[in-house]
Amino acid sequence: MEQINLPQLPLSVEWKEENLFLLDQTLLPLEVKMERQDSAQQVWDSIKALKVRGAPAIGIAGAFGLLVAAKPHLELSEAEFLQALKKEADFLDSSRPTAVNLHWALERMLKKAQENQGKSNEEMLRLLRDEAVAIQVEDGQACEAIGRHGQDLIQEGMGVLTHCNAGHLAVSRLGTALAPMYLAHLAGRKFKVYADETRPLLQGARLTSWELQQAGLDVTLICDNMAGAMMRQGKIDLVIVGTDRVAANGDVANKIGTYSVAVLAQHHQIPFYVACPFSTLDFSTPTGKEIVIEQREAEEVTQFGERRTGPVGIQVANPAFDVTPHELITGIITEKGIFRPPFGQSLKAAYQP
Amino acid sequence: MEQINLPQLPLSVEWKEENLFLLDQTLLPLEVKMERQDSAQQVWDSIKALKVRGAPAIGIAGAFGLLVAAKPHLELSEAEFLQALKKEADFLDSSRPTAVNLHWALERMLKKAQENQGKSNEEMLRLLRDEAVAIQVEDGQACEAIGRHGQDLIQEGMGVLTHCNAGHLAVSRLGTALAPMYLAHLAGRKFKVYADETRPLLQGARLTSWELQQAGLDVTLICDNMAGAMMRQGKIDLVIVGTDRVAANGDVANKIGTYSVAVLAQHHQIPFYVACPFSTLDFSTPTGKEIVIEQREAEEVTQFGERRTGPVGIQVANPAFDVTPHELITGIITEKGIFRPPFGQSLKAAYQP
Repeated sequence: MEQINLPQLPLSVEWKEENLFLLDQTLLPLEVKMERQDSAQQVWDSIKALKVRGAPAIGIAGAFGLLVAAKPHLELSEAEFLQALKKEADFLDSSRPTAVNLHWALERMLKKAQENQGKSNEEMLRLLRDEAVAIQVEDGQACEAIGRHGQDLIQEGMGVLTHCNAGHLAVSRLGTALAPMYLAHLAGRKFKVYADETRPLLQGARLTSWELQQAGLDVTLICDNMAGAMMRQGKIDLVIVGTDRVAANGDVANKIGTYSVAVLAQHHQIPFYVACPFSTLDFSTPTGKEIVIEQREAEEVTQFGERRTGPVGIQVANPAFDVTPHELITGIITEKGIFRPPFGQSLKAAYQP
Repeated sequence: MEQINLPQLPLSVEWKEENLFLLDQTLLPLEVKMERQDSAQQVWDSIKALKVRGAPAIGIAGAFGLLVAAKPHLELSEAEFLQALKKEADFLDSSRPTAVNLHWALERMLKKAQENQGKSNEEMLRLLRDEAVAIQVEDGQACEAIGRHGQDLIQEGMGVLTHCNAGHLAVSRLGTALAPMYLAHLAGRKFKVYADETRPLLQGARLTSWELQQAGLDVTLICDNMAGAMMRQGKIDLVIVGTDRVAANGDVANKIGTYSVAVLAQHHQIPFYVACPFSTLDFSTPTGKEIVIEQREAEEVTQFGERRTGPVGIQVANPAFDVTPHELITGIITEKGIFRPPFGQSLKAAYQP
């Protein structure tokens, strides 16, 4: 089956002529710059500095990053090379300790190496490259399947709201929350997308509105506090957001502000969908209550570039995520299909550990 | 009765030794600067550039501004002086055509002049100064009464959320939405205030959190999209906001985002109050549907100081206000007391045209 691409958009992670290139997302929407990664340290710095962000994209960057990290060790004995790979994987893994996909991708790469002990270093490197490519391809297939399952939720003339960036830039291609929008657009349907700017880091303004605009969709940028008024005016018919983790009962952790959108959607009787690869489901977490929410620095709220916007010494709350309880969720769109309430049962039935 | 002041805070409009000083609020929270106003043009520019903002504060600035504008005309004959006053009032009124209080204050000043035709120019100027002082004093009395009626809504240990700035900086003193908080604080009660930053112009971050911090209250700044999560965590027990206009049925127009806060408050069964002088009630507007919402420039959303945050050419929605329907409002706090539903009846009963 031919895969669906978005030729107007750069890949967030690209392996080209045996080199790793990362799109520097901190420069968007002002500049599109693919940066070649020449060392493990550079990959580590790129992940740390959020040049590459979005859990799946970080995982893919880590897998290819391990190839970059391995190259200087090719002259070692085969046993030493394997040891070096483990050390480099640990190092890369330390760049974003909370990113589950990064750890998962590096583990998968090491497992491949372990299974092929005794092969020459060059042969090992080729096998690992194939594994990294497989991780990227599989992610792309999952995103495309999410898009196919979700695209018919979007009908001609609708207004669709999203929050933060769960788009092409966050994954291998197409995105999770944005995949249904891209596929509906490619199918020729006309509809409007509203992108919440997503304070404090403005992923909606800088990334979502940019990638949708580049791909030719009809997108309107709004401040987070405008979503309610837009719903009341009848401009929003559907909400689709991404997620960082889904608990076993269907509670969903996602970017701060997602919960408010879900409450507003319920008040206006607007369907609220969450899109993610099935691997985002964490059956070891029974409910959203057990999800620990990262608190981030006050300066993200009180500084804007060089400019201070809040008083010196002001107290700030800056939770990075919130939890949307399953009662507010209409459906969870995955590559396996759309799951419906009661999520505790529907998700569990599809789970193969 | 002695009036309640906040000695830690500058006045937004101050008449001192026969000169008008305006606090330049565009410099807050970085700098506190009182700017002497030496001409009608300077006052016009100050209002236009939002150095003074908040409907009551603009009205007071306009009244004193007319004195500044009158001074160069003192050598004219008495009839010519009156004509000059009218021209200057028209000019000042054109600085913010939608600010009802500005028009109202200037009309009141002209009426005073009209009633005293024949008096010497010096005597006229003194009478007009007394009238401007009266406007400022009456506004302060209304704010203080709003504070007295509202202060017992705030009990020890509560969390109180507000949106935008309806504070000391927006009026003569104390504020409308913030007056109950100041009085509860002065009464020795301990409670927490949460200030929505209020995108796009950040009045909550720049003004509300600053004035509450200066006055010694326990205030925490949050992004607009965090209010829902804070409510779910049980941190918010009460919401008080200001308003720009109240329709006859109790529908309320206020800064964009107020409606979302009201829906979130209802979902969490948190009381939602609106505070305003009784003069904010517009009985000529039957419901919120008749209130025209100002749409502002896209750049307020896509630019931050010198820094661009949204893609070039992106579509933006930027309504300055939204309407909160009366069903979501627990009470309207005015200098005449707290009005309760059904507002159509309770407000009408207190109205004396």
